[in-house]
Amino acid sequence: MTVPLSDINLPAVLEEVTAAFAEYQEALVTNDVAVLDKLFFDSPHTLRYGAGENLYGYDAIRAFRQARPAVNLEREVTVTAITTYGQDLAVTNIEFKRAGSDRIGRQSQTWVRLPEGWRVVSAHVSLMT
Amino acid sequence: MTVPLSDINLPAVLEEVTAAFAEYQEALVTNDVAVLDKLFFDSPHTLRYGAGENLYGYDAIRAFRQARPAVNLEREVTVTAITTYGQDLAVTNIEFKRAGSDRIGRQSQTWVRLPEGWRVVSAHVSLMT
Repeated sequence: MTVPLSDINLPAVLEEVTAAFAEYQEALVTNDVAVLDKLFFDSPHTLRYGAGENLYGYDAIRAFRQARPAVNLEREVTVTAITTYGQDLAVTNIEFKRAGSDRIGRQSQTWVRLPEGWRVVSAHVSLMT
Repeated sequence: MTVPLSDINLPAVLEEVTAAFAEYQEALVTNDVAVLDKLFFDSPHTLRYGAGENLYGYDAIRAFRQARPAVNLEREVTVTAITTYGQDLAVTNIEFKRAGSDRIGRQSQTWVRLPEGWRVVSAHVSLMT
């Protein structure tokens, strides 16, 4: 099997992923931890590299979220790039700035359509040096 | 469609992706630009966030590689996490250190099996703050 080039950004798939991504972003700035937890794949394979931490497995990601202070989560998204491949895979990438900082942040997520729905299986957030 | 949980890390798929990833890593430290170019998807959708640059589209990534000085590319990989989902998708994540630096680098790649073979469609490299 392969993903045919004609199956990149199929409109129905792109619409689904865009909605899931919007739900994630809204939950992020409102610190809705339940939604953030829901949208990451509950698996030891899931991982998240944050600006200052490397988290392996859903449990580590969940524990980090619960311990994080819910301050300064607001961000301005300056670039958004969402691409879907076939029916079951998407990558979402954004550039953002936090209030009071000129540094450019980047957030990359890989989404997979699993039996429970679209879930993030890998994420990487960093500040450009 | 969905990716069944039983199709995570199918041995044959994991073997293929592990080999493609090893080819990429070898090309990286030897600055084999032709191989690096080959293993990224030739598409305007492909993107790469590097430690100090945000590159959108295959052409921008290729131009960056050709301009980059081929020095200090050696790195020690300290953690490797490769996971495949179904037949056509994989994520590769590593932690690494560059010679002469104690900073922790992270490299995340999303791979898709396209008609031309396994290709990186999204990449993010950063130094942990």
